[in-house]
Amino acid sequence: MKKTIGILGGMGPLATADLLIKIVTMTKAACDNEHIRVFVDDNAAIPDRTAAILHGGEDPVPEMLSALRNLEKCGADCLLMPCNTAHYFLPRLQAETEIPFINVLSVTSERCADLHPGKTAAILATTGTLATGLYQKELNAQGVPFLVPNEEEQAKLMHLIYDLVKASLPLRPAAQDWRSVLDGLRGRGADYFILGCTELPIVASTLEEEGPFVDPTEEMARAAILFCGYEVKE
Amino acid sequence: MKKTIGILGGMGPLATADLLIKIVTMTKAACDNEHIRVFVDDNAAIPDRTAAILHGGEDPVPEMLSALRNLEKCGADCLLMPCNTAHYFLPRLQAETEIPFINVLSVTSERCADLHPGKTAAILATTGTLATGLYQKELNAQGVPFLVPNEEEQAKLMHLIYDLVKASLPLRPAAQDWRSVLDGLRGRGADYFILGCTELPIVASTLEEEGPFVDPTEEMARAAILFCGYEVKE
Repeated sequence: MKKTIGILGGMGPLATADLLIKIVTMTKAACDNEHIRVFVDDNAAIPDRTAAILHGGEDPVPEMLSALRNLEKCGADCLLMPCNTAHYFLPRLQAETEIPFINVLSVTSERCADLHPGKTAAILATTGTLATGLYQKELNAQGVPFLVPNEEEQAKLMHLIYDLVKASLPLRPAAQDWRSVLDGLRGRGADYFILGCTELPIVASTLEEEGPFVDPTEEMARAAILFCGYEVKE
Repeated sequence: MKKTIGILGGMGPLATADLLIKIVTMTKAACDNEHIRVFVDDNAAIPDRTAAILHGGEDPVPEMLSALRNLEKCGADCLLMPCNTAHYFLPRLQAETEIPFINVLSVTSERCADLHPGKTAAILATTGTLATGLYQKELNAQGVPFLVPNEEEQAKLMHLIYDLVKASLPLRPAAQDWRSVLDGLRGRGADYFILGCTELPIVASTLEEEGPFVDPTEEMARAAILFCGYEVKE
């Protein structure tokens, strides 16, 4: 009996759909019936994670638990959260369920070590994710050197994430901002970029700048496909 | 209290993700929390609908009901099936639940009458959908003139749907097939095309041919957004 995936989604809704597409297109399958059964609760009511971590905003865990309970009822065998920042709350969520979460920060950091040994990663993420130090900890555990954006670059990333992707606005006007963040980090020694907020793969696929990029949404999809006993398409 | 959507999916998995993206991008929302809560059971185990209708293949209703029960447990307020052919089984499914289904064939036919009054539609759909006569009946009810592909054109459509989209293979090699279907129907009087199989909007967005097209997946998304008390983005 092959296994199923539960997506604890809504953080944000477009990133949730992006993960679902990546699971479908990365699974080796020749017809509908060879795909993985996936349950999604795209719970748009989950309060903002960065606001909760940095500014005492509303605790997102109760709404996250509401989605978790639905995925349990559906019979999910593993859980994915397409939101890097949300992983700050993972210990509280994992304590509430027997179903294993696949930790996006762990699988991404392992992949960085495999794909780019000895090279320096730039962590592109929300201010909330960076403040938790979770990526820094996971990359250190894998021996991956890294750097983070400066204040000005971070403000440009937050603009792209919050004012454009999450607001469903066109990204093209911010193409210069995106390029200047990448160029700035490259100039300070970055060899590649971790798209460490699930809105950023959407930015990277729309505003075609040179990477190389490591896409945590893809890494989440890959880890879940393998966990469920399916093959990843080459 | 705004309402929620349940997607009875997996028919196929890529079409299910396409519907989720359309719901998200068509909803007027300025941040994550202004989006609709959507539950998905992307149940890839549902047997092929066309095979069941035409060739005595396995009855898909038991696996469809398995997904329906999950969406009930999650608390969906309305139900969408991103598979036109599956609507042949809608009466049996609706008899099993109090939650209203939004019928993609009805909302699409209404939209055809609104957008293209007096013009002739070509129904692009699976052989199973055409055999049920469901689109023909709904278009007749709206007074919309229509025609259907000839045998050769229908074989090309089924090749695109089953051998390429559902098999996750590149569509580009079949670009000439797609163009010849559209040209043939246009030559016989079609003014526009109903993408009446949920794999076909994927074909139409990849192989950029002139339409105009009416996309039932978009119409399903629009009807559900309005049902839930949200606004459609212009």
